[in-house]
Order: sequence, then C-alpha cells, then structure tokens
Amino acid sequence: MKVCEVMTAPPVCVAPRVPLVEVTRRMAECAVGSVLVVENGALRGIVTDRDLALRGMGGGMAPEAPVDAVMSAEVVTVDADDDLQVAYRAFRRTEVRRLPVLDGGRVVGVLTIDDLFLDVFRRLGDLLGPVAWSVLQEPPGPTSACGGPRVL
Amino acid sequence: MKVCEVMTAPPVCVAPRVPLVEVTRRMAECAVGSVLVVENGALRGIVTDRDLALRGMGGGMAPEAPVDAVMSAEVVTVDADDDLQVAYRAFRRTEVRRLPVLDGGRVVGVLTIDDLFLDVFRRLGDLLGPVAWSVLQEPPGPTSACGGPRVL
Amino acid sequence: MKVCEVMTAPPVCVAPRVPLVEVTRRMAECAVGSVLVVENGALRGIVTDRDLALRGMGGGMAPEAPVDAVMSAEVVTVDADDDLQVAYRAFRRTEVRRLPVLDGGRVVGVLTIDDLFLDVFRRLGDLLGPVAWSVLQEPPGPTSACGGPRVL
Amino acid sequence: MKVCEVMTAPPVCVAPRVPLVEVTRRMAECAVGSVLVVENGALRGIVTDRDLALRGMGGGMAPEAPVDAVMSAEVVTVDADDDLQVAYRAFRRTEVRRLPVLDGGRVVGVLTIDDLFLDVFRRLGDLLGPVAWSVLQEPPGPTSACGGPRVL
Repeated sequence: MKVCEVMTAPPVCVAPRVPLVEVTRRMAECAVGSVLVVENGALRGIVTDRDLALRGMGGGMAPEAPVDAVMSAEVVTVDADDDLQVAYRAFRRTEVRRLPVLDGGRVVGVLTIDDLFLDVFRRLGDLLGPVAWSVLQEPPGPTSACGGPRVL
Repeated sequence: MKVCEVMTAPPVCVAPRVPLVEVTRRMAECAVGSVLVVENGALRGIVTDRDLALRGMGGGMAPEAPVDAVMSAEVVTVDADDDLQVAYRAFRRTEVRRLPVLDGGRVVGVLTIDDLFLDVFRRLGDLLGPVAWSVLQEPPGPTSACGGPRVL
Repeated sequence: MKVCEVMTAPPVCVAPRVPLVEVTRRMAECAVGSVLVVENGALRGIVTDRDLALRGMGGGMAPEAPVDAVMSAEVVTVDADDDLQVAYRAFRRTEVRRLPVLDGGRVVGVLTIDDLFLDVFRRLGDLLGPVAWSVLQEPPGPTSACGGPRVL
Repeated sequence: MKVCEVMTAPPVCVAPRVPLVEVTRRMAECAVGSVLVVENGALRGIVTDRDLALRGMGGGMAPEAPVDAVMSAEVVTVDADDDLQVAYRAFRRTEVRRLPVLDGGRVVGVLTIDDLFLDVFRRLGDLLGPVAWSVLQEPPGPTSACGGPRVL
C-alpha cells in the first residue's frame, strides 16, 4: 500500500510571506491543524496551529508577521510512491504528526498520524471479519447526545 | 467494564465421562473450539479441539475414551464480576486463549481472546469517531467474492 | 479500570484573567497542548494551543487579552472514579481530544485521547503476549537517525 | 510491505498419504496448528488440528487414515511477492486463519492471522513512539506468576 492511497490531497498551502493572521483563517476555513509553506511549487516549510500560538503570539510577533518567521523549515517528508511503511517509520523516529507528501519534488498531499491510526483500525477490522461491525456501538452520522458524558 | 459484559454465555459444557467422539460432535454443532468439563456444577477442566487431536488421537486414545483423560485440569479462570483488566492480564501471563468465567464458583460463561480483540477494536473505533466507519471497506453481511484472493 | 489510573495529574491550570501570551508560555514550558482554566478550585473552561491561534490571534485579540476570552466554557468532563469506558464513550460522541478529570467537583487531572491510544496499545500487547515485544523495532530511548525518512 | 517479510518460513509440510496420527505428532513437535499437504512440490491442501479432531476422530476415521481424507483441498493462498494488503483482504473475506504462501507455484511459507495481529501492533507502536514501550507492563522473557489470575 502506497502513501498516495491514504494521504489527504490536495494539501492546504500558503506562500512564505503570508501574514500569520491570514494563516489562522485558512486553518479555520479548511479545518486543518497545519499548513504547508510553498514557493514556486517547492516546499519551504510547515506551520501548525501550535507554532502560531507558541512561536507567533508567544514569541511576541505581530499578526502581520510573515509565516516563514514561525514555520519549521526542516521538514520530514515522504514520497507519494513510498510504501506506507516508510511513513510509519517516520512517525516512529520523529515527533512530527504530519508528513508532507512529494511527487517528483512537487508537494501533492499531507499524511497525518490520524490517517495512519485509521489504517491500523481498518487492518484490525479486516482481521476480525464481519463480526467487527457488530461491536461498533453507534452508526455513522451525527451521534446521539443522550446518556453521554457530563458537560460542564 | 466487567467480564460478564463481554463473555459468551452460556458456555458449552460436558460431563467428565463423555467420550471424545461425542465432544467432537458438540464442538462442530456449537461451532466452538473448546468445551468446559463440568461435574455437579463445578468446573473440572477445559478441552480444546487441539487437545482432542494431539492428546487424544496423537496419544493413541480410542474415540470412546472419556474426555477427562485429555482435558486440562489446571484451568485459569476469571470471575464474572472482575474488571476486564483481570482477563487482559491473564492472557498476558499465560498461553491460554479461553478463560472460563465463574460466578460464586459456578461456571457461567467463557471469555476468549477473540472477544478481547473485538474489545480493542471497539475502543479504537471510539477514539477515531464517526470517520472510523468510512474506512471499513465491506458492509456487514455476506462478503463479496469478486476480486478476492486466489483459491487453489 | 478507572480514569484516575490512566489520567495525567496534576493538570496544568491557569486563572481566567491570565493573559494569552502567558498561557502560551505555560504550554511551552509544560509541553502540553491544553490548559485548564480554574477559579477558586472550580473548572471554568479549557483552552488549547489551537484556540490561542485561531480565536486569539485569528480573532484579532491582543496577547494581553485574558484567557477566558478564548477558552471553551462548555467542557466535557469525566470523574476520577469513572470506569475508563465512560471516557471512551465521551471521545466517541464528541470532537474533543482532552477530558478534564474531576473528583468531587475539584479538578484533579486531564485524560487525553493519546492516553487512551496507549491504553489500546497496552491491551493489544497483553493479548499478543511476550512475542509482541519482538516486533517493536526500536528500543526505548533516543531513536537512531540513520536510514530514516527524508528531511527537507 | 510484502507477504514474504512477515510470513513464517519454511512451512511444516506432509505428503498426502501420511497417517493422521503422524500429522498430530508433527503438529506437537513443531508447535503449529496447521500443516500443509504437499506432493511433488505442489500444494494439495491444508489441515488444522481442528480438522484432525472434528473430521478425523469425529468422522470415525482411524488414526492410520491418510491426511488427504480430512484436509481442505480448496485453499486460499497468497504470493510471497504480494503486498501485505492482499493478505488482509483474504482474512476479511474468508473464515480462514492461515494462508499458505506461494512463490512461482511452489510453497514457501505460511502467513497466519496472528502474524498480522502482530503487524497491527507494531504499526500502532510506530505511531505512539517511544512512550509506547513504557506501557508494556512486563518485560520479555518468562512472565512472573505472582499476583496473577486464579488457577483452578
């Protein structure tokens, strides 16, 4: 199984000089936790919501500061054609939770650790067979609220 | 979560003097891989299909030999009221794959390692949320045969 | 198994009027992704690094704005004494990834979705027995860098 | 990741005319639950300990009967070169728990469902990182007996 079969594509990208506040808007709109920083089709870095908070606001930067001031320029990447195994290994050896996916040097997607948790779940379901479905206690779709956990 | 919420009940039981060949029939009828050996409500042992083959046929026993000749008399058990954690620990520390479940000394069920693989799967599904359903690639019910693995 | 056996304690807490920028520092120091907002021992809300970025900086707030302006005041909680099952259900039914843990109304810890992924892993390891260790490919401690994934 | 990276090799094989009682001995010696039936290098079938008990003893066969009388002649197989994904799919779509592995038509190994449970465990460990080790509660090697589950 290849990275390109599981990745999310296309990725959400911004240019290096885009202001931090604009990046927060893209993250909210696209419901993502990280954005790739790309220039002329080449990956320059990655920035997470945590980077914006801790390095941006925490570092005393103005909301108009450019995103390349807080991005991580050292990025662990995988190739679209790589076996998924390469991505598992990357998550084991690093602290990152998202891997930009390249194809011939061009950014084509993102693979998150959550994508691979789903891969693990699917594999486990394969091994357990049809009975696996019977233990999933709530159907897909909006979940019922009754009898749930306490809300403050 | 308690053992009694996950166990299979009632268990398939036979008396100690039941012939091996009769036990093979009960296993086939009930589609189980092990049978509890019970006398006057008390657990005397457990016998698996493997025991019937290796200790029974392999040990030169006649099909009319009594099941207590091949059963395991040392049985790891759990209580119906035990936290599921006790069962996980039992599987970690022993080689067994089935645990008879007792309630006040009386046999009330069996907990198999497959029941707990399903418990693990359900927990993982809980953590992943509704999106988990989307990755299960075949619906419940008879599975499609097309495009499947090779059959000799 | 109870929530208090798996939760992280004590939790990182701040008062409602603490400035956003101070919260970013606490998150960095303590290496956490969320902080509980507590007043006179009572839970008032929770704030994540994402809230600071998207609602704080993205909402045009100054770094000196008080944290209660961006926190989530509706918080799903569990009790320290609850069976872990209650926490699994909470994660299934909500989008949250952290649950403050209460004991008699007082905040005593936090249970994250990552704590429960570890719980799932431990259970699976229990079922697989000692052989499970043999497949974990790298020892604990700093991981080797050689032969790893590409770094930009 | 390919089937040949995870399979057990070489497989335990017997000829079609080997007596059932001899097969039980091979299973005991090699600590396996199934044996491949092979003739002139070609796979003819597979036989499990359960087949020996239920079809053999349960079917009234003598211990000297040949194994091909109880083996399953329809066997789901995978190729050594197949992506592991093919094996997951085979387990999802069939009831089998062992897949003979072929290489150019020749039998070279067996892939069991337990091999893939270990694969799932390893992947989950990769995603959780070094902290995963800390939750595995007992070291490799002989497990401690104290404080364990009840033994009858």
